[in-house]
Amino acid sequence: MPRLPRLAALAPDSAGWGFFLCTSKEVRTGRSGSDFLILTLQDVSAQITAKIFDDVPRFGAEFDAGEFVRVEGKASVFNGQLQLIVSSIRRVHVEQDRREGFREDECVLSAPRPIDEMWAELTARVGAMQEGHLRVLVRRILADHEAELREWPAAQAIHHAYRGGFLEHIVKMAEVSEGVSRAYGADADLVLAGVVLHDIGKLQELAYEAGSASYTRDGNLIGHIALGLILVREAAAGISGFPIELRSKLEHLVLSHHGSREHGSPVEPKTIEAFILATVDELDAKINQVRRAVREDVGEREFTGWHKRLGRVLYKGGI
Amino acid sequence: MPRLPRLAALAPDSAGWGFFLCTSKEVRTGRSGSDFLILTLQDVSAQITAKIFDDVPRFGAEFDAGEFVRVEGKASVFNGQLQLIVSSIRRVHVEQDRREGFREDECVLSAPRPIDEMWAELTARVGAMQEGHLRVLVRRILADHEAELREWPAAQAIHHAYRGGFLEHIVKMAEVSEGVSRAYGADADLVLAGVVLHDIGKLQELAYEAGSASYTRDGNLIGHIALGLILVREAAAGISGFPIELRSKLEHLVLSHHGSREHGSPVEPKTIEAFILATVDELDAKINQVRRAVREDVGEREFTGWHKRLGRVLYKGGI
Amino acid sequence: MPRLPRLAALAPDSAGWGFFLCTSKEVRTGRSGSDFLILTLQDVSAQITAKIFDDVPRFGAEFDAGEFVRVEGKASVFNGQLQLIVSSIRRVHVEQDRREGFREDECVLSAPRPIDEMWAELTARVGAMQEGHLRVLVRRILADHEAELREWPAAQAIHHAYRGGFLEHIVKMAEVSEGVSRAYGADADLVLAGVVLHDIGKLQELAYEAGSASYTRDGNLIGHIALGLILVREAAAGISGFPIELRSKLEHLVLSHHGSREHGSPVEPKTIEAFILATVDELDAKINQVRRAVREDVGEREFTGWHKRLGRVLYKGGI
Amino acid sequence: MPRLPRLAALAPDSAGWGFFLCTSKEVRTGRSGSDFLILTLQDVSAQITAKIFDDVPRFGAEFDAGEFVRVEGKASVFNGQLQLIVSSIRRVHVEQDRREGFREDECVLSAPRPIDEMWAELTARVGAMQEGHLRVLVRRILADHEAELREWPAAQAIHHAYRGGFLEHIVKMAEVSEGVSRAYGADADLVLAGVVLHDIGKLQELAYEAGSASYTRDGNLIGHIALGLILVREAAAGISGFPIELRSKLEHLVLSHHGSREHGSPVEPKTIEAFILATVDELDAKINQVRRAVREDVGEREFTGWHKRLGRVLYKGGI
Amino acid sequence: MPRLPRLAALAPDSAGWGFFLCTSKEVRTGRSGSDFLILTLQDVSAQITAKIFDDVPRFGAEFDAGEFVRVEGKASVFNGQLQLIVSSIRRVHVEQDRREGFREDECVLSAPRPIDEMWAELTARVGAMQEGHLRVLVRRILADHEAELREWPAAQAIHHAYRGGFLEHIVKMAEVSEGVSRAYGADADLVLAGVVLHDIGKLQELAYEAGSASYTRDGNLIGHIALGLILVREAAAGISGFPIELRSKLEHLVLSHHGSREHGSPVEPKTIEAFILATVDELDAKINQVRRAVREDVGEREFTGWHKRLGRVLYKGGI
Amino acid sequence: MPRLPRLAALAPDSAGWGFFLCTSKEVRTGRSGSDFLILTLQDVSAQITAKIFDDVPRFGAEFDAGEFVRVEGKASVFNGQLQLIVSSIRRVHVEQDRREGFREDECVLSAPRPIDEMWAELTARVGAMQEGHLRVLVRRILADHEAELREWPAAQAIHHAYRGGFLEHIVKMAEVSEGVSRAYGADADLVLAGVVLHDIGKLQELAYEAGSASYTRDGNLIGHIALGLILVREAAAGISGFPIELRSKLEHLVLSHHGSREHGSPVEPKTIEAFILATVDELDAKINQVRRAVREDVGEREFTGWHKRLGRVLYKGGI
Repeated sequence: MPRLPRLAALAPDSAGWGFFLCTSKEVRTGRSGSDFLILTLQDVSAQITAKIFDDVPRFGAEFDAGEFVRVEGKASVFNGQLQLIVSSIRRVHVEQDRREGFREDECVLSAPRPIDEMWAELTARVGAMQEGHLRVLVRRILADHEAELREWPAAQAIHHAYRGGFLEHIVKMAEVSEGVSRAYGADADLVLAGVVLHDIGKLQELAYEAGSASYTRDGNLIGHIALGLILVREAAAGISGFPIELRSKLEHLVLSHHGSREHGSPVEPKTIEAFILATVDELDAKINQVRRAVREDVGEREFTGWHKRLGRVLYKGGI
Repeated sequence: MPRLPRLAALAPDSAGWGFFLCTSKEVRTGRSGSDFLILTLQDVSAQITAKIFDDVPRFGAEFDAGEFVRVEGKASVFNGQLQLIVSSIRRVHVEQDRREGFREDECVLSAPRPIDEMWAELTARVGAMQEGHLRVLVRRILADHEAELREWPAAQAIHHAYRGGFLEHIVKMAEVSEGVSRAYGADADLVLAGVVLHDIGKLQELAYEAGSASYTRDGNLIGHIALGLILVREAAAGISGFPIELRSKLEHLVLSHHGSREHGSPVEPKTIEAFILATVDELDAKINQVRRAVREDVGEREFTGWHKRLGRVLYKGGI
Repeated sequence: MPRLPRLAALAPDSAGWGFFLCTSKEVRTGRSGSDFLILTLQDVSAQITAKIFDDVPRFGAEFDAGEFVRVEGKASVFNGQLQLIVSSIRRVHVEQDRREGFREDECVLSAPRPIDEMWAELTARVGAMQEGHLRVLVRRILADHEAELREWPAAQAIHHAYRGGFLEHIVKMAEVSEGVSRAYGADADLVLAGVVLHDIGKLQELAYEAGSASYTRDGNLIGHIALGLILVREAAAGISGFPIELRSKLEHLVLSHHGSREHGSPVEPKTIEAFILATVDELDAKINQVRRAVREDVGEREFTGWHKRLGRVLYKGGI
Repeated sequence: MPRLPRLAALAPDSAGWGFFLCTSKEVRTGRSGSDFLILTLQDVSAQITAKIFDDVPRFGAEFDAGEFVRVEGKASVFNGQLQLIVSSIRRVHVEQDRREGFREDECVLSAPRPIDEMWAELTARVGAMQEGHLRVLVRRILADHEAELREWPAAQAIHHAYRGGFLEHIVKMAEVSEGVSRAYGADADLVLAGVVLHDIGKLQELAYEAGSASYTRDGNLIGHIALGLILVREAAAGISGFPIELRSKLEHLVLSHHGSREHGSPVEPKTIEAFILATVDELDAKINQVRRAVREDVGEREFTGWHKRLGRVLYKGGI
Repeated sequence: MPRLPRLAALAPDSAGWGFFLCTSKEVRTGRSGSDFLILTLQDVSAQITAKIFDDVPRFGAEFDAGEFVRVEGKASVFNGQLQLIVSSIRRVHVEQDRREGFREDECVLSAPRPIDEMWAELTARVGAMQEGHLRVLVRRILADHEAELREWPAAQAIHHAYRGGFLEHIVKMAEVSEGVSRAYGADADLVLAGVVLHDIGKLQELAYEAGSASYTRDGNLIGHIALGLILVREAAAGISGFPIELRSKLEHLVLSHHGSREHGSPVEPKTIEAFILATVDELDAKINQVRRAVREDVGEREFTGWHKRLGRVLYKGGI
Repeated sequence: MPRLPRLAALAPDSAGWGFFLCTSKEVRTGRSGSDFLILTLQDVSAQITAKIFDDVPRFGAEFDAGEFVRVEGKASVFNGQLQLIVSSIRRVHVEQDRREGFREDECVLSAPRPIDEMWAELTARVGAMQEGHLRVLVRRILADHEAELREWPAAQAIHHAYRGGFLEHIVKMAEVSEGVSRAYGADADLVLAGVVLHDIGKLQELAYEAGSASYTRDGNLIGHIALGLILVREAAAGISGFPIELRSKLEHLVLSHHGSREHGSPVEPKTIEAFILATVDELDAKINQVRRAVREDVGEREFTGWHKRLGRVLYKGGI
């Protein structure tokens, strides 16, 4: 039995074995009264729905959601989507399976660019900030949350929803917004601080474990925008002499970064920097969605299927 | 020359003198090239636009916006609104004018109910709260901000926009929401805390001086909803053992009290208490607007003129 | 084989027998070509979807939608919802089954509070109305429609959709609005009349039989708001000397109670009483939905799943 | 001094005398403290704003709103609109002025087509209806309200707001909808009945006197859609054997004729006839507005100025 | 084995054989791991979903999407919709099957009215146009695209989505708009030209083959409104002396025919003719949808099920 | 009498003489019956409203809208805006006035950056395009329209509404989008072509003369988006071998650049390049509006007055 290719390369007739992270596992009762299991599996390149119809009680006891698993099965098309029909599954035995090539990193859906490289780029940009108070504040937050900022996704599901997605999102926004700030003579340090901190409240809004993110109590009741504000306020309070007007401008960036009240910002952009931040954030999120939709569309047509969230089909030629 | 009646009782042909607070003063150049002054005057019962056409340089030097003034003039209808044509004006000389009956309180537009009475009712309600942490927190905030909470309006212009309006708004909401909470078995202490604190950020959002409110820098850049959140977070941090879940529920009340994102709440009500608070807040604000529109409409018809904000006329019969 | 618990207490592994009302019954052809039956069953506490896969022709002949049935089966989770897999079913034989404990009332989904108690509270409130014409009108309508008003649901599906739900809705609204009217000095009799009559057109809009409600021809073509208006107009015509202005105010309450044109009111609230009625109606309907969503959510998380109609998740802590 | 041309033909430099209906009259105090009068005058062809600056007390006593007046003055452009600066005004002395050519009809803004001709066309169409119950019902309503139906405008301000406008509106709708009904095999009698009755509630919604319409109490509190329903319900009740389904369909037409809930219909079209009625009503109202905007635009450009209600400019070439 | 009735007449228990066009064919893997085929079949009267569970590999090789097929099977209800369970299928052998009654025309879903008759009516109307340039232009376009205009549907799915639907749509619009134009004194030639050309860009927006329409690259990237504009511009350029203003008015009709920007028109109607065209287009599309929903609803109730696109149920009485 | 400063530097008490372009001139009749003139004047730095109250007939004959004028007057504040009260005005006599320092360029409101410099930057960018067909097409259009592209504003009123504004807008967009394209690996040539051509239809939509822009017939009836499409289509037709797919992508950019149908794009962005173009266009227009609002706000507060179009106040600190 051959090893399965990476999930991103899986074909409708692929069959074999592989290592994956199981991020969800549910028992369902089929129409005939017999149970089956429905799973979500991922590797570094993509994620997939998987089903187990045979020996459900035995296999169900072999692993839990949140664990790495060794799977045998074959790909199959269901309602136009690839899925994996699993014939055998068990949790990974790290030492033994490492000899067969198991690597944790290879089993977690991840940003395409290496995390160390992105982290280095980000810290370099922050290190080059001119305004001392902002630089200290941003550096301190980066230092305090380095572990999460290197690993977390940028959102639960909509965009950059994979390991390193948070970092990928802000590194790309930093790159884009630098040019935009220069073109408009905006305060580049302030924009960069806004880029790094705009979603910082997500570290409290979400809980990210074993490759999947869920909303926390404060995530639902308070939300990442207000949580981010509190975090910035507290960080500024810890830096003596942090200018009061600068703090207001920075907090304004965090609060207004969704661009409009309809999208959840309690105040709307009122500074050039806030217009730039909200624009670059939305563009980066949209392009990430477009790229993903084009990549995941397996049809032969020039256009993807209907993208529900964007409300349109997308052109695959040249993307 | 007789003394003018209170502004609420002014008739189109009233003429005489009176004491008022001048809340705005602007010089304008008329079409003929001559200047005139346009003022806003108020007393305890209402406010009015006033104009000075004669001796502008002399009268203009006699007072400033934010001062109490002694005015002679006559009422007049302009575009369907009463205004005052001023023939003479000077700032109040407190000692001298007190002999003629000048009283500061009589010159500031105010809630109809005595402030001490409302304050006593509010503190009694708060004192009766069962949940100790909440009671301590609310009491502390009341104590810290008593001066503003007794004097400030509830909003710059839309509803309860007069001295004591903030207090009137929360006292009435406390009365209404008590019955609603009981009917639905909601946490009455939590709702009451939400009532007292929902707009507490307005103390930083607005600056209220000399009878008129304006937006501060943080009011525009951060807004009272997020400012209120920070204030509650800091107050809770000062109370040892304040339960974390209780804090989340309370902050949720502050953040969601506008009821929807369109109206500026970054999160929408997700608890019974939040639904009640948002509902009672909106109803109280609307009824205040309706009452004011009915009171200010001087026509003889059964309905007011078009109320732009509410998008309708209002029935005057029985209100 | 044990007796099943009430549906509200059903667990994923419950098995046994019970008496229910079957409110819908449909034959479907499965993928394999074999037919199965899909039912809705209810008892006093909840309702559930049930399926019959075996002996379909025989069981299908044993009962019809709208009948009470005796069922044997076991609970099962399908797409995250509890359902009942039926192994045996027949219609109830009243005399025989009563010996086993069959009671009609126990098989119809009902308001939690006893109907007689709610009815007594409502008639007491109405009896205490000061304004004679209104009291006569409301009493007459209560008398003419007592049977329906005691039994009907408040809506087909969205809120209070069970036996006695209509009564529960107006009794709770009467309780809440009494305090609100007092607080704002509104005409309490008028508000109470509006509470009782605002949905009275539903008695013609819906047909309620055997535990399920459906839209009538006039329900679809005319709607309960306009039907209620006609009913009120006719009732007022039957009371000599009913004041014309009072009739207008009352009809305005019925017409405007959805609060806005978008929600189906041809006129929007223009009196204090109309603002109160629309507010209390919406709050009561929303709280009923929130309570139901929290009660029906079987997961262990602190929040319910996504509530499609309210467009959010709901906090289960303390509701 | 020459006689002024009809208002529709007035030029920026016209001066002279004429007879008009004065539909509104207001005293205003100018900036200099002196009063002036602002009037609305109309003749059969158009209406105009007029102002009196001189001898205000004397002229003000010479007439009231709602009276025919003899005016001397000259046209003038103010903010891009023609107005009349009045140098002399008095109420009409019918007998004396008739010798100078005064005719009431010539002084009331009116539909361009003769009312008798339109009435004859409408009654002929109604007389040709096949369905007996509908024909009796519509005829009876026409007979009961002939006076108003011949004279009233179709709306207070937006479209067909002149004498005979109501009749003009339904006669044109009857002509258009006849062809549409035929094309789609719709029930032409039902559509015609809907055309005649869709706005019948306006006879109670508005009060039309002396050339100007205002909202009544029931107009504001109940609205013409619901008032029309009641009128139709009562008329049907007076015709023995009026089919219940036919009544529902007809009432549905009245209720749904604004096409959507946003526009004030409590139910939306659910029959072919209702779709046709709502479509023809909206088109006729819009074309009337377009025609008026093109006619009233006095500029030389190919397009009118911005039409606030339609949200666009309109092409004058060929309209 | 009997011959199946036309699909429009198919009953839940029909069984037999028939000739159809297969417009889509997909392989799916069932839960048990076995594959099945899901097809769309149509005849002149209706279309239906069909499934093949047995001998999938063999039957799958017997035909392709886009081919005529001979099918044996029986009707069945699935989720409230009729479907066909296929027991045998093969592609049509034209010569042999013609002896059994196969006719291509009978197998393609088509407009109810004969195409030749509709085409004759349309060309007669066009031939009677007074304005020479418009007549030449419209005739030329009709001549250039006769084949497509006779065969194509008016849309991919929403309305008139069958053979001859495009022609049926414009012929009906021509009939309706003629009367409307006359009633309002609009330029009937211009409106007719607009009717014929408003959707002409669909010939490039869609690709219609073998009974099914799909979007082309330019259809998605440019859209039929802009494609229609280009086509009209080019056609006008080919007619010497085509008046420039007439071209603008005609292009305006094409561009504004969706009535508002929200519906995809880059400019909104600014001429009487454009208001008429947009109104008639929308009404014809809606009535087509209503008729189809009523026809396809197989229940016994007076109203159809919920129509998702129109957002309501529809009355079946008399439609 | 001193020379007035540039309009951007005008203070409320400035008095003196200067040269301006008069872009509008209207006669109005004041309340007293006397006429006055209302003008719009501009110089290179700003524009202002001016009024003439004295000697109206004489001065009115001295110049026309669209001419350069020599003005004497003094600044004055009216409704919070600076205006100029003109005491003397005549048209410029070029030769004579040049000796006093008259220069046409100094009298036309213009982009702050020199036009030659912007033109050079743009042509350099275009010259560096890699894709030959696009480069030829863009160059050809630049060459054909150089005169307009150097002089025209980007819009009639909303943003970049001054001489050279069109060029300033696309040069800035080219700068910004270059970085964005690089960051996302988009087709930079295609984006640049889209930047240059997205508003090219404005050259037909507007007529720009004597410093003011107005809508043409085709501007109103067809609009710049569709006009731009036609222009691109025709230009591509003139380049042999222009790839069909490239043409579709380019036309898609022009059509979708407003980002949504609500904003007038008949198709919405479906390629990465289209998302980038629409984003950069909107950001550049918004920042131009923000900058202008901040610059024109003469108050001393930290925030501008309410910006109607953006629906907010704007922070002046640091912009």
